[in-house]
Amino acid sequence: MSETNRQFTLAARPKGMPSESDFNLVESPIPTPGANQFVARTLYLSVDPYMRGRMNDVKSYAPAVQLGEVMTGGTVSVVTASNHPGFQVGKIVEGNLGWQEYALSDGTGMRIIDPDLAPISTALGVLGMPGMTAYFGLLEITNPKPGETVVVSGAAGAVGSLVGQIAKIKGCRAIGIAGNDDKVRHITEDLGFDGAFNYKTVSSYHDELSRLCPNGIDVYFDNVGGEITDTVISLVNPRARLSICGQISQYNLEKPELGPRWLTTILRSQVRIEGFLVFQFLDQYETGQREMAQWIREGKLKYREDIMEGFENTPKAFIQMLQGANTGKQLVHVADL
Amino acid sequence: MSETNRQFTLAARPKGMPSESDFNLVESPIPTPGANQFVARTLYLSVDPYMRGRMNDVKSYAPAVQLGEVMTGGTVSVVTASNHPGFQVGKIVEGNLGWQEYALSDGTGMRIIDPDLAPISTALGVLGMPGMTAYFGLLEITNPKPGETVVVSGAAGAVGSLVGQIAKIKGCRAIGIAGNDDKVRHITEDLGFDGAFNYKTVSSYHDELSRLCPNGIDVYFDNVGGEITDTVISLVNPRARLSICGQISQYNLEKPELGPRWLTTILRSQVRIEGFLVFQFLDQYETGQREMAQWIREGKLKYREDIMEGFENTPKAFIQMLQGANTGKQLVHVADL
Repeated sequence: MSETNRQFTLAARPKGMPSESDFNLVESPIPTPGANQFVARTLYLSVDPYMRGRMNDVKSYAPAVQLGEVMTGGTVSVVTASNHPGFQVGKIVEGNLGWQEYALSDGTGMRIIDPDLAPISTALGVLGMPGMTAYFGLLEITNPKPGETVVVSGAAGAVGSLVGQIAKIKGCRAIGIAGNDDKVRHITEDLGFDGAFNYKTVSSYHDELSRLCPNGIDVYFDNVGGEITDTVISLVNPRARLSICGQISQYNLEKPELGPRWLTTILRSQVRIEGFLVFQFLDQYETGQREMAQWIREGKLKYREDIMEGFENTPKAFIQMLQGANTGKQLVHVADL
Repeated sequence: MSETNRQFTLAARPKGMPSESDFNLVESPIPTPGANQFVARTLYLSVDPYMRGRMNDVKSYAPAVQLGEVMTGGTVSVVTASNHPGFQVGKIVEGNLGWQEYALSDGTGMRIIDPDLAPISTALGVLGMPGMTAYFGLLEITNPKPGETVVVSGAAGAVGSLVGQIAKIKGCRAIGIAGNDDKVRHITEDLGFDGAFNYKTVSSYHDELSRLCPNGIDVYFDNVGGEITDTVISLVNPRARLSICGQISQYNLEKPELGPRWLTTILRSQVRIEGFLVFQFLDQYETGQREMAQWIREGKLKYREDIMEGFENTPKAFIQMLQGANTGKQLVHVADL
């Protein structure tokens, strides 16, 4: 444990794929809590695709990270000093305290988690933001019916791997699209997807999807965008529902990409497309967490974590995740309890 | 009145914009009704954008017109001979009897209209398919709220001109996009749109839409597609709703057009896009017709018809409509009652 606090701040706004030099590792004193404040030590840090958007200085649903500011990010931490009656020393807390080893908080947006219920890291994964994204983004946005075919892109990632399993729980046929053969094997053999393919090695997305979805596509959960999504749209059934969760293929482009216009298909097949942000379901999280935890206990829902060791490797973990190296939820292990 | 029946059949499948030579004018005997059949003489014929799709030999929501077959199309007709107890001689009927002067029918898909309630031609316009398209495509698909900004493309057409007026009735700001200055004048001065522009003469769609929609765009009713739609999407507010009714800019392209990928905006702004076909609201038509007729009686809803004289000019009317020459509903007047 270092005597000082370490933080990653945003050093430069990347064009295209970020590099480690876009972040500065800076040292500062460990903060001291004022009235109604506490200090928490980071145990696990989450790196997620949405953070790429926060590095751009553009209007979005959340403010951009400013140059010199600590990078934003979800954390599981332990309270080490406190003047806050609701957050006593020793409590495990989940929230967004950013890329730093110690953080000061007044409790806003923080919740205490029970380490006896599930491993504390799950608060950043299957029972946290990615889990709620999969749960509500599939069930609330697309309302999948038994027997329907559900396709998910980014299918081995933190969200996608759960989406396919929830589709199976709901009686659907689940087809995954992922970026390497290990991921394809994992989601079909370990997670029970009905089919999957490696988009980096197949000769035709259209042929693979046609083969794996002989009855067409009723629901699409999109983490990726680009040509994969264009191809899915060419194969949708009437009244298909598309949940737009992520567009990771587009986030690192230096200029916007062109693609075929497909709104005529959306019209003729009476398709609904809806973009969502998980925060819109905040008041239903408890329901989602309860049901997801129940499915885990029943053995119906499996999750995998990719753990990078060491706070100093956070930028590396983030960049590798953007490049698709992870299978499951990418975390950084910063300290032991 | 001719002694024989005249029909337009499909002579060739057009690439791009149809021409008059894609249709054959053929003569045949006036049919004689069998048991439970009637013969009706066409009074008005409707020409509509959707017919362009039926000329292509591709899978769609409705079968393609075959070469040599009579072109499909909505009609208002009078029963001239009948062995059908439900359709007596002299009754005025609305349905889809196609591009011909006389048609045989067993009554399927036909309804009797009351000529005392409204001019019979309105059964093909404001109280028919275009009217129901505007009514349900706006109200059911986008649920506009008072104070919201509603943008409609193809705003002077049979559907668009009604959409903007219904938006006004619902307390919204209505902005139209149309293809000549007369149309712009008509929808703002005669129909009460809050603003409009001629997309063929402005230097920047973005600048015009920004100026006319200072509070952003909450609802978009799309008849056109292409670059106009891309620009609208760049200006949508969070939780905007897009109703995809038509894509007339795309129907006559010889190969699919490329455009910027905008699903990242759909995601970040939590936008819903829905394609619809008016037939999905068939069981609610009566409600829509009753409310639209009431608005017409109250002077809140105006409609305009563009009448082409003479059955032999039907292909010309159709092509001019596709080229945007009409303001309001394009009809062909075939015969007097």
